Amino acid sequence: MDYKGLYNNIKRKKSFLCIGLDTNPALLPSFMEGVRYPLFEYNKAIIDATHHLAVAYKPNLAFYEAEGHIGWLQFEMTVNYIREKDPTLFIIADAKRGDIGNTAERYAQAFFVKADCDAVTLAPYMGKDSVAPFLAFKGKWAVVLALTSNPSAADFEMESLALKDNDVSQGGTPLYKRVIERSMEWGTPENTMFVVGATRPGKLAEIRKYCPDNFFLVPGVGAQGGSVSEVAKYGMNSHCGLLVNVSRDILFAWKKQDSPYSEHEYSKAASAAAEAVAKEMSLYL
Amino acid sequence: MDYKGLYNNIKRKKSFLCIGLDTNPALLPSFMEGVRYPLFEYNKAIIDATHHLAVAYKPNLAFYEAEGHIGWLQFEMTVNYIREKDPTLFIIADAKRGDIGNTAERYAQAFFVKADCDAVTLAPYMGKDSVAPFLAFKGKWAVVLALTSNPSAADFEMESLALKDNDVSQGGTPLYKRVIERSMEWGTPENTMFVVGATRPGKLAEIRKYCPDNFFLVPGVGAQGGSVSEVAKYGMNSHCGLLVNVSRDILFAWKKQDSPYSEHEYSKAASAAAEAVAKEMSLYL
Repeated sequence: MDYKGLYNNIKRKKSFLCIGLDTNPALLPSFMEGVRYPLFEYNKAIIDATHHLAVAYKPNLAFYEAEGHIGWLQFEMTVNYIREKDPTLFIIADAKRGDIGNTAERYAQAFFVKADCDAVTLAPYMGKDSVAPFLAFKGKWAVVLALTSNPSAADFEMESLALKDNDVSQGGTPLYKRVIERSMEWGTPENTMFVVGATRPGKLAEIRKYCPDNFFLVPGVGAQGGSVSEVAKYGMNSHCGLLVNVSRDILFAWKKQDSPYSEHEYSKAASAAAEAVAKEMSLYL
Repeated sequence: MDYKGLYNNIKRKKSFLCIGLDTNPALLPSFMEGVRYPLFEYNKAIIDATHHLAVAYKPNLAFYEAEGHIGWLQFEMTVNYIREKDPTLFIIADAKRGDIGNTAERYAQAFFVKADCDAVTLAPYMGKDSVAPFLAFKGKWAVVLALTSNPSAADFEMESLALKDNDVSQGGTPLYKRVIERSMEWGTPENTMFVVGATRPGKLAEIRKYCPDNFFLVPGVGAQGGSVSEVAKYGMNSHCGLLVNVSRDILFAWKKQDSPYSEHEYSKAASAAAEAVAKEMSLYL
């Protein structure tokens, strides 16, 4: 899917919601015990209940790999089901891969060809070699980690670099900025997104200044403390430029302490939660 | 496997060879076409022919994932086969994962529990959150990317940080050094290794100075230009402290331009190549 196609879907659905499929088998309803493909069956009902409210889904590979090859099969079944349900849905493999040359090309094969995802999240640590091979696939996207929403983003991502052309006394260039600047040289807004967490809205505004056109995949709304209004205020551009991800607050909405839904109503709970987020998003579109 | 167990195996076998199982289906012998589990069958013959010469194997997940869930199954079959063949062999899942909290815990489940690997390679970009969950597994190892062997390691890994307590005019602290220093705070030499490429022997010597005890997983020997003698000279410590990885030069030795081996003799070619490397390694043990 290209930039324009994604933007059109956002306008049509009045939503920039990405639903994270972090499908943890330990959190599934008790009646699903013994089901052959529990991760897929759970996802299927969630997708059925939310596909009109979201523009993207983001299966998190860790939760499938933890179940071995049967888990990987359920990742594939989930991707195929989303494609069948609505071919305009954008699918992000949240895999955070990062390797070089012929290895990166194999990962691209895994997520862009073998599984028909639109995008894959990438860790930039190893540099251009680990991102460029993904950019060679037309209509596919590299989603590069920039400033993540977790506390230990401060460990390396926010460290200042002593670049030749900057003034360290003024704070230097943080690593995440350098990653964004270099990635903007390697790709275009048509094939490169950045992960920018919702937990630091000030940083989101700052990054949008030097990165006006690229889409941002924004985690951290909800449980982690970020808000849709702040993300929209500080991160939106003229083509929306945002995919805000919500995982557990939708996927396992029925498990929230104040949830009125039983385990049998998990998809209904997800739909209600997604609708609330999408409704708020529509105010900004 | 613990530090002492690994060192004992190195002494016993007089080898610190790790064989990379980057099993690319496009490079397999033509007679394997139509085989149901070609990656596994190829690996099996390679392991049979080389297990006495190596102390470790390193399946590279990208090559399995590119074949979908049937590829992941063959990764699992390979790990199980290595375990059966010789329980003292050290198995590294070269997965370069890096994610946070409950996601990292799922990756640990995938590689330490569901598949019985000893170690997994990790990208440190997201900080402590992405490494610490792996350190909670007793007898298992986090292999943290520090200074990789690829050209674009210069993009971020070798950038200098403007830390408060260092003198930028003296060159600052490169990111890879910061990664090593921080990781040494999170883990111990009993559960943390570092990836340090063979392509920059001067850096290997420098890193060994401030990181005397940890094992280094060293890629880049052979095709990429690094040599066993230089790695041993600059990287070895009193407990060897090295696992030198060779992938394609052993795995696909029969495909080398000057190889006397036919495609039917691929395991014989691998054995001869591994023997040559192990023989050189024995000089330094």
